[in-house]
Amino acid sequence: MPPTITAFENSPDRGRGQARDMRVRWALEEVGQPYDVRLVSFEAMKAPAHLALHPFGQIPTYEDGDLALFESGAIVLHIAERHDGLLPKDANARSRAIAWMFAALSTVEPPIVELAMAMLFERDKSWYAERLPMLQDRVRVRLGELSRHLGSADWLDGTFSAGDLMMVTVLRRLNTSGLLDEYPAVAAYVGRGEARPAFRRAFDAQLAVFNAASRP
Amino acid sequence: MPPTITAFENSPDRGRGQARDMRVRWALEEVGQPYDVRLVSFEAMKAPAHLALHPFGQIPTYEDGDLALFESGAIVLHIAERHDGLLPKDANARSRAIAWMFAALSTVEPPIVELAMAMLFERDKSWYAERLPMLQDRVRVRLGELSRHLGSADWLDGTFSAGDLMMVTVLRRLNTSGLLDEYPAVAAYVGRGEARPAFRRAFDAQLAVFNAASRP
Repeated sequence: MPPTITAFENSPDRGRGQARDMRVRWALEEVGQPYDVRLVSFEAMKAPAHLALHPFGQIPTYEDGDLALFESGAIVLHIAERHDGLLPKDANARSRAIAWMFAALSTVEPPIVELAMAMLFERDKSWYAERLPMLQDRVRVRLGELSRHLGSADWLDGTFSAGDLMMVTVLRRLNTSGLLDEYPAVAAYVGRGEARPAFRRAFDAQLAVFNAASRP
Repeated sequence: MPPTITAFENSPDRGRGQARDMRVRWALEEVGQPYDVRLVSFEAMKAPAHLALHPFGQIPTYEDGDLALFESGAIVLHIAERHDGLLPKDANARSRAIAWMFAALSTVEPPIVELAMAMLFERDKSWYAERLPMLQDRVRVRLGELSRHLGSADWLDGTFSAGDLMMVTVLRRLNTSGLLDEYPAVAAYVGRGEARPAFRRAFDAQLAVFNAASRP
């Protein structure tokens, strides 16, 4: 039995691969592990059956035999630990790749989500025009640091790893913000991630779900 | 040679154990691993020598032989993987404990930091009174979910783990917000963490640094 993940029945991103199931799909595609998908509605996400899998009522979850996991970072790490292709063999390089996973989620993603939330929910507020540049500048700080770190390298630390997978999915949330264009090295890095065949397969799979749901 | 971590030369939290070196100190105390501390100034954190260790110019870092790591979550996981006491032996329970580490950093911490940032930097803004309840409510959602999950349990998933260590340090950022009092099960959970001898030793060690720095 392949593992089962959950994803939005009707993704609010309209199939642009911004929902967090994309990270898990991509990881499974990189390691060549087939998987099943169970779609959940917004209502079902907050119902007891799903809360038993995910205490915060979100997607994705991951079920494999008697193991149930939540948090995209934890699921990707779990997959990376059990299959070749997402973590280096060298112990130090492995720990550094995991550090980049945490950096993506804990240092780079929060200001990006804060900007995205403001653009979604505070656009009509009196303070929007004054707060927006402040939020954009917080994201620019991180993009500048990432750009300096990357330099002319293809990936964050040697070969492609789960750290790059998480970082690229986090940065893709900026696709429509215009900010990535200000940091060509970071934009090129995201492009390299999106060009990987495993990314394309994962992206097409989540887009097919959205297209099926929105068919009349 | 014991590992060396970095911490603020002069912590902005005035020794209340809110800086992220506290997580690493606590983990090292739980597993009984001695460590050295190198203090860094705000200026030194953004200088090339420190940026070579931490691409985002923050603390803590962790150096052990030829390994250099950054991100408190990654450092705590690295320690937990190499010493007994912070991760269950059972493979599924181990993966779930790691899921709680990610949940602490990726799901629970961001709205707490956002609230803290607004209370620090937006107190004099025209929008503060309108935004504050919105930010508090986002934190309340997570506290409610955590409270429901905890029920009458002592820890998040069986015995104390690195997941609890990360979650307690994240929740402690709310100590002066008044919000924890609204969720007695969560407040008691934080209290259980703070009562652990290893927490006390770590807390006292970071407080001693602050007291030494602020001595006339």
